[in-house]
Amino acid sequence: MATVNENYNKLSSDYLFVEISRRTKAFLDKNPDAKLLRLGIGNTTEPIVPSVIAGLRFGVEKLSNPKTYTGYGDEQGDARLRKALVDFYAKRDVALAHDEIFISDGAKPDAANIQSIFGEKSVIAVQDPAYPVYVDSNVISGHTGIKKGATYEGIVYMPCTEQNGFFPEVPTQKVDIIYLCSPNNPTGAVATKEQLSGFVDYALERKAVIIFDAAYHSYISDSRLPRSIYEVEGAKECSIEINSFSKSSGFTGVRLGWTVVPKPLAIDGAQAGRVNSLWSRRQTTMFNGASNIAQEGGLAALSEEGMAENQSVIDGYMENARTIRECLVQKGLKVFGGVNAPYLWIKAPGSMSSWEFFDKMLAEAHVVVTPGAGFGPSGEGYIRISAFGHREDINAAVESIRANLMV
Amino acid sequence: MATVNENYNKLSSDYLFVEISRRTKAFLDKNPDAKLLRLGIGNTTEPIVPSVIAGLRFGVEKLSNPKTYTGYGDEQGDARLRKALVDFYAKRDVALAHDEIFISDGAKPDAANIQSIFGEKSVIAVQDPAYPVYVDSNVISGHTGIKKGATYEGIVYMPCTEQNGFFPEVPTQKVDIIYLCSPNNPTGAVATKEQLSGFVDYALERKAVIIFDAAYHSYISDSRLPRSIYEVEGAKECSIEINSFSKSSGFTGVRLGWTVVPKPLAIDGAQAGRVNSLWSRRQTTMFNGASNIAQEGGLAALSEEGMAENQSVIDGYMENARTIRECLVQKGLKVFGGVNAPYLWIKAPGSMSSWEFFDKMLAEAHVVVTPGAGFGPSGEGYIRISAFGHREDINAAVESIRANLMV
Repeated sequence: MATVNENYNKLSSDYLFVEISRRTKAFLDKNPDAKLLRLGIGNTTEPIVPSVIAGLRFGVEKLSNPKTYTGYGDEQGDARLRKALVDFYAKRDVALAHDEIFISDGAKPDAANIQSIFGEKSVIAVQDPAYPVYVDSNVISGHTGIKKGATYEGIVYMPCTEQNGFFPEVPTQKVDIIYLCSPNNPTGAVATKEQLSGFVDYALERKAVIIFDAAYHSYISDSRLPRSIYEVEGAKECSIEINSFSKSSGFTGVRLGWTVVPKPLAIDGAQAGRVNSLWSRRQTTMFNGASNIAQEGGLAALSEEGMAENQSVIDGYMENARTIRECLVQKGLKVFGGVNAPYLWIKAPGSMSSWEFFDKMLAEAHVVVTPGAGFGPSGEGYIRISAFGHREDINAAVESIRANLMV
Repeated sequence: MATVNENYNKLSSDYLFVEISRRTKAFLDKNPDAKLLRLGIGNTTEPIVPSVIAGLRFGVEKLSNPKTYTGYGDEQGDARLRKALVDFYAKRDVALAHDEIFISDGAKPDAANIQSIFGEKSVIAVQDPAYPVYVDSNVISGHTGIKKGATYEGIVYMPCTEQNGFFPEVPTQKVDIIYLCSPNNPTGAVATKEQLSGFVDYALERKAVIIFDAAYHSYISDSRLPRSIYEVEGAKECSIEINSFSKSSGFTGVRLGWTVVPKPLAIDGAQAGRVNSLWSRRQTTMFNGASNIAQEGGLAALSEEGMAENQSVIDGYMENARTIRECLVQKGLKVFGGVNAPYLWIKAPGSMSSWEFFDKMLAEAHVVVTPGAGFGPSGEGYIRISAFGHREDINAAVESIRANLMV
């Protein structure tokens, strides 16, 4: 008699974006003529740049020819792409070996699956608010208790607040696996080297592991801010970095990412090299490599031309962020993020809740945003706005907010 | 203090293909002039057909244009592709709804991850021999005990032998999750409707779930043999089908597959629809959709033109299978499979073990095969030969076996 994984019963039934859809649909049912302006989901909107399109095309053409056709590649990724990523890190003075880099079909699956190589009694710490995948994947895998109110038992929530600049203090209790995301989704906060250093010191002392999600690294323009956790001394001994082509190259639909598991990383019962080999075993057993077409595109994205072309797309999104920021500040709202990150984090006026502000934005400005409470209890009272969008749509949303939002 | 998932320690350290590489390399080191002929790995070798290449190209071009660019799609897959698969099944008189079909990046990840939606105390049954992913994914997830000899404690091995035509008898004991693969990897055996029906009856009676791997369905030419388990009465109430474009369209490197979780499937503590929604939740939380380029290719592969063009590639591989089969039979070897499946399953001469026959093939004919013992204890005494390969390479291997193998 088969049974189900009961941990699924612990998950909230209404996933954030499902509830957003529901409320949006209800609004449209009542206001069929309203033209909705969407600043909610962090989905790229601009076409892939010419040099990367050329790479993808090349990937397809290779498959049409018996001399260049390839089937299964290494589950860990194409050797050329792994080496290109070694060079990519070397530019930031981070020395990695190609077999410390594992190509994947994106940051989300890696962020969700990485917990599976660690012990089932691991205590998880997450930034609060955080990308829901860190929490949900651990709930499903049984690393938490049940949900009580807005939090799961057994997870350590590290509040990110206006007071701490939306980067958490190092935990005071014992935790084993620490998820950090910088530039942050949803707050747009970017950790300094000093802030990351505090976590690295904690992890080294307690033999904890940091899972560092750097999926938005390419939005950092301030050269003093670290784009990789390995720019911090000691990080290779305690940190795994998860990364992606999604937001740097418009690959949200193409699906390509990577995870770095440095060989010096050692923990209890696993000497240097062991965690690297565990992830390799996980990937070779349960994954079959990223698409060879996507990997050709990734190679092109890492070329000098690809990097330059992508930079202008990123600059465009960041121009969106500036426009949105300016409008909201003029409205008298408290706005965070949106400087070295594509997300803005906005305090709801007065004592309004996230969902109340969501409803107000929808009703008055016809703008769809993301309620901060959906990312964790400390997100309550905030909304997230994404800078991904066509310029004309962003301008229309900004105009509508300017004209119609009553703050 | 982080710890590792100790279940990884239960896994054999030397994965089958690693050991094959090691022995092959050792042979080449001693015989640097030998030209190796590889019939080992089940990897497609022929280029992707023109109509599917056109689909992939179209997928790339869409991404270059702001009007047609797409980022994140539904994690469950593109609606058009799901509907095309509904039509694909309808041709075999199997009625499915599009939301019973989940597009993925291939059969391997789905086969590995499907266990995660079931209870941790589930008793797993596998065909013996079997594709190693079924067993290894359950070992990693803690659904088994340790390995003793050639088997893991807690797994029910269902022997596939010459006596039962390499399709197992229904278990006599209680099992909860049953993995079946037809056409089978590695034996090349194809289950009849009657044989599948026996398992469906067992599953319905015991409320067990069948995980049916149909990745090689397109190699069946005998119209009486079922290409989908849903051709069997009652299967929708108890079976999940995992499938792939890898072997039907040369997508081993492109990465595209699908899994069917019918809504009528109900088990203990999960009424109809619940298992479907669990897999949906798993995929939306831990996966981010298959590549949009690959999905355009998949659509083209399901078109009339795509199906016809792919059929001739499949016919070519099956011609390879016939050539290999003929040669081995002439050599006096006992050969199974290779008729409605791209794999041949060959009894080692006399009382030779799998690895001994592997070594003999390598030493005498310079042909690399796959030792049957790597797929489970009942694979001992057999080797697997794959029909995937360019015609000239297959002919060279066959000539070498004919001339040099001493049976």
